[in-house]
Amino acid sequence: MMKDLVLKSTHNALFMRALRGEEVDRPPVWMMRQAGRYLPDYLKLKAKYSFFERVENPALATEITVMPVDQVGVDAAIIFSDILVIPQALGFEVSMNPGEGPRLPQTIRSAEQIDAIQIPDVADRLHYVMDALALTKKTLDGRVPLIGFAGSPWTIFCYMVEGRGSKTFSKAKAFAFSQPEATARLLDKIADTTITYLKAQAAAGADVLQLFDSWGGLLSPADYRIFSFPYMQKIAQAIPDTPVILYAKGCAYALPELARAGATALGIDWHTTPEQARALAGPDMVLQGNFDPSRLLSPIPEIKRMAKEMVDAFGTQRYIANLGHGILPEVPVDHAKAFVDTIKAYGS
Amino acid sequence: MMKDLVLKSTHNALFMRALRGEEVDRPPVWMMRQAGRYLPDYLKLKAKYSFFERVENPALATEITVMPVDQVGVDAAIIFSDILVIPQALGFEVSMNPGEGPRLPQTIRSAEQIDAIQIPDVADRLHYVMDALALTKKTLDGRVPLIGFAGSPWTIFCYMVEGRGSKTFSKAKAFAFSQPEATARLLDKIADTTITYLKAQAAAGADVLQLFDSWGGLLSPADYRIFSFPYMQKIAQAIPDTPVILYAKGCAYALPELARAGATALGIDWHTTPEQARALAGPDMVLQGNFDPSRLLSPIPEIKRMAKEMVDAFGTQRYIANLGHGILPEVPVDHAKAFVDTIKAYGS
Repeated sequence: MMKDLVLKSTHNALFMRALRGEEVDRPPVWMMRQAGRYLPDYLKLKAKYSFFERVENPALATEITVMPVDQVGVDAAIIFSDILVIPQALGFEVSMNPGEGPRLPQTIRSAEQIDAIQIPDVADRLHYVMDALALTKKTLDGRVPLIGFAGSPWTIFCYMVEGRGSKTFSKAKAFAFSQPEATARLLDKIADTTITYLKAQAAAGADVLQLFDSWGGLLSPADYRIFSFPYMQKIAQAIPDTPVILYAKGCAYALPELARAGATALGIDWHTTPEQARALAGPDMVLQGNFDPSRLLSPIPEIKRMAKEMVDAFGTQRYIANLGHGILPEVPVDHAKAFVDTIKAYGS
Repeated sequence: MMKDLVLKSTHNALFMRALRGEEVDRPPVWMMRQAGRYLPDYLKLKAKYSFFERVENPALATEITVMPVDQVGVDAAIIFSDILVIPQALGFEVSMNPGEGPRLPQTIRSAEQIDAIQIPDVADRLHYVMDALALTKKTLDGRVPLIGFAGSPWTIFCYMVEGRGSKTFSKAKAFAFSQPEATARLLDKIADTTITYLKAQAAAGADVLQLFDSWGGLLSPADYRIFSFPYMQKIAQAIPDTPVILYAKGCAYALPELARAGATALGIDWHTTPEQARALAGPDMVLQGNFDPSRLLSPIPEIKRMAKEMVDAFGTQRYIANLGHGILPEVPVDHAKAFVDTIKAYGS
């Protein structure tokens, strides 16, 4: 379907130049979870279609992905999807019920279950993601680069064992701590599946890939080195041709190692100051972040002041302005826009 | 009732000596939330009495407080109570329903509500806590010191605005960020009430006081300096005669300031290594922590190895062994005991 199309290249887009460490006039800006949640037009689609209808229908996923580009003016699009498509591809049912978050009715309880998991042909199983990327790429027509993504193996493991979101993920941690060898085998299977998946996303049109380690911060520094970091590194090193951004929430202690993992950029959460992040990650790494998502609930003048201070502290080079985590559903669109506009006007 | 009693002094107990920085043969050990949750005898009381019956009946609270001293062998007792007795004392209803955590049906929505709050005679309103402390002190008969506690003003504020537990406490943060002056007035009222409350606890028999900033880690370093730290400091400085331990979860960035707040010791969570905690807090501060509570779900030999490594890393002096957060309900008692026994056998 895409054969006859000549897509406009995003090679020289601001976002790509910042990722390559090239000199830029101002930092690019986008927001984690920018597609969906707080956007009124998204909420209309949400009222009409179930979560997986929105994710699995390329036309809907494209419409949602492009919304914040048109309506908020961000410098990159991120495909509307979910990290839990990987457990689905591995044969685990995932349900998403409004107001209660994701549920996996069948959870990992034994090493035998892990050894029975077959690594799927993920490009086939998750073809709808690749279709959505291709259609989004065509729809964007070179306006901004397109980001694909996946969850980190540890974060996916947490859901596959716990079966749902949790404050402590203590079932998942208990499994990892009592059966570390079986855990390593599952993390490897997830990592291998994720590598194939991310490569397929790049082939379908993703210019950049981000890996989300949402639950890495539940681990101690020592356990992070055992259960999360090696698999993030394995993925980053397996994808040399597409820029990879590693985002590990609550893992500032791991920034020095993450900076040597083979990734292009590191996502920073709002618990670390820009100065600390730069000191931990070193002078060459591209950093992305780290506005407290709740601070978008401040009055607009305050948002503008703080967004400017954030760029002052990170500097304009080797830096991508973003939130420190996903945008909250209750953020007014004009607050999100004030944040984006402040970055876009920086220095002018 | 206590007039005729001569209580055995805990002045020279291991825990008190470690807190004073005196030389000890091995570190003292206790566990946050050690009273309750995972103890079968507690679960029997839980089946029979509601949460507030257990908290408000001094005989029950004493029985629960003393359980881990008898059954697990910890070096300190911490009174069985709840941080949300402060909102109750301020006139806000708190309900605790099994399986859903605390609920405050009436929440703070305006500055007017804040200005209408009267600072109560907290020793009278919460007399049952003081009665429980006195009875526990008598029951312990000098075996181990007794810890009293309260929540930090920011953490109490979070519940008073949000009305319940939350992953992001975004309502509370939105209120703080949009009405910082009113927020400061409420934080001050909570701090003043807490000072009176902690002093009353010390007068009733608490040898040591711990302040729990459970939700400080939701704030950025800059916002922590505005909304949490000043009130922790105010409380620590208002109580010069009783050792105060400040525990701020997820706030490693604030350890240098917390070390200068006037407290005796700092609680450390498991996201910080012992070496980092010592470097951030300085050589003189007494540190307390920081075993990952989920690591008590590991096999016992692993628990013993890691507990020993923790003391190796913290050192035996100016150190109190503890978890990095509260013990989890699913921890088997013999696992908790293995942790405590390992510390008690350290070096022998």
